[in-house]
Amino acid sequence: MKPKIAVGVVIALVVAGVAYAQFAKPEQAIKYRKSVMFLIAQHFGRMGAVVKGASPYQKEDFAKNAAVVDMLAGLPWEAFAMPGTDKGDTTMSASVLQRQPEFNAAARAFASDTAKLAEAANGGNLDAAKEAFGAVAKNCKSCHTAFRAK
Amino acid sequence: MKPKIAVGVVIALVVAGVAYAQFAKPEQAIKYRKSVMFLIAQHFGRMGAVVKGASPYQKEDFAKNAAVVDMLAGLPWEAFAMPGTDKGDTTMSASVLQRQPEFNAAARAFASDTAKLAEAANGGNLDAAKEAFGAVAKNCKSCHTAFRAK
Repeated sequence: MKPKIAVGVVIALVVAGVAYAQFAKPEQAIKYRKSVMFLIAQHFGRMGAVVKGASPYQKEDFAKNAAVVDMLAGLPWEAFAMPGTDKGDTTMSASVLQRQPEFNAAARAFASDTAKLAEAANGGNLDAAKEAFGAVAKNCKSCHTAFRAK
Repeated sequence: MKPKIAVGVVIALVVAGVAYAQFAKPEQAIKYRKSVMFLIAQHFGRMGAVVKGASPYQKEDFAKNAAVVDMLAGLPWEAFAMPGTDKGDTTMSASVLQRQPEFNAAARAFASDTAKLAEAANGGNLDAAKEAFGAVAKNCKSCHTAFRAK
């Protein structure tokens, strides 16, 4: 498993992040991004349990979870760009559509930080990985504060 | 993007496929696998549109979709192994839990075929990729017939 490869994929997908024409209906885009976010939360949560000391550190599992998060981090942004998807079964704030450059910058920062986390996790130094984990967690929080409806 | 790397990740995750202890509740495992399956269907569907000639062939996009499908193909199996998850908001048949070796063999065949598809798509030969796509589609169908409730 070599995270550098995954990084390439992520960046390519983030850059291609305006192709919301892939979704026939707003509901489909909403379901898509919710699916990705749920999976990110699952795998990031498994890492969080290790970071907090609630689960034992197993290098391979930790690195696998980081690689999955990193891959997923490249996927959902086009689904956030679709007009009308601030309504319906979603917690996305209308601010995502109103402040797209700011949102896209946050998405890129997230993808960049997950790539660093994947690399650190793959390196097997838990302290370095914890620091990278913290940076990603900070990203999650600030983006949710700015762009998620209460 | 080098699919061989992705293949390694997938096989590792498929082999680790009994770790359903990751899920606190059956509902979580069900949501997890449904999320993965929805995303697979989305990306495989985009490739299907190209295979059928409904969408233009763009090598990079096609290869990206194949890489995403291949990565996702390694993820959901542990969520299918959790006892009790044949009940609730799911179309999983009880046969998955009753015939686990058969189900796991089908999962491995699927992951192996998605790896071949990712490799073919990355190679840029659409005819080869179409053949690999057909093999994956056959896998989807046979597994759904055997293991999905009506």
